[in-house]
Amino acid sequence: MYVSLARLRVSAERADELIGAFRRRAKLVDGFEGFVDLEVWQSDRDPCELTMVSRWTDRASFTRYMRSAAHRASHDRIDPGLDAEIKLERLEHLHVVAR
Amino acid sequence: MYVSLARLRVSAERADELIGAFRRRAKLVDGFEGFVDLEVWQSDRDPCELTMVSRWTDRASFTRYMRSAAHRASHDRIDPGLDAEIKLERLEHLHVVAR
Repeated sequence: MYVSLARLRVSAERADELIGAFRRRAKLVDGFEGFVDLEVWQSDRDPCELTMVSRWTDRASFTRYMRSAAHRASHDRIDPGLDAEIKLERLEHLHVVAR
Repeated sequence: MYVSLARLRVSAERADELIGAFRRRAKLVDGFEGFVDLEVWQSDRDPCELTMVSRWTDRASFTRYMRSAAHRASHDRIDPGLDAEIKLERLEHLHVVAR
């Protein structure tokens, strides 16, 4: 299984707004082939650090999604003011090797 | 839900050995109250970087496990030579805030 981990940073004022946007997400990805699940994690130590974790059956499915109209539509739903203030700090690609 | 994320580093020679140890783990944690699941992720870019991710119903359950005999017994199963070469690079505590 493939894991995409995106580390996002927002201001303290914007953190709850971004969490709210994730909670109201359109769930367009949920029906996408190869998608397993998605979670958003907030750091206990630093509430401005949010990690978006998505799991996929394989990397190719993730890549197909990232290039899809569904991904563009999901992204376009984000308020432009909020979107402009989200800083992508780190993007990681990993594989599940044990459970 | 609470997430504990431990970023581990081993030498290229030891990476497969550590993955094997995780695959053969005693699963003592699996019956522990509050435990949800555990995965080990290997970075695509850097195979020496392994991330141990465990999910718990709440942080108190994780803390109880870390102080338990089950945790000590699990840790004591690791080959001392391997254990000595595992570097804990980062330990993070997070909460699931959206899905």
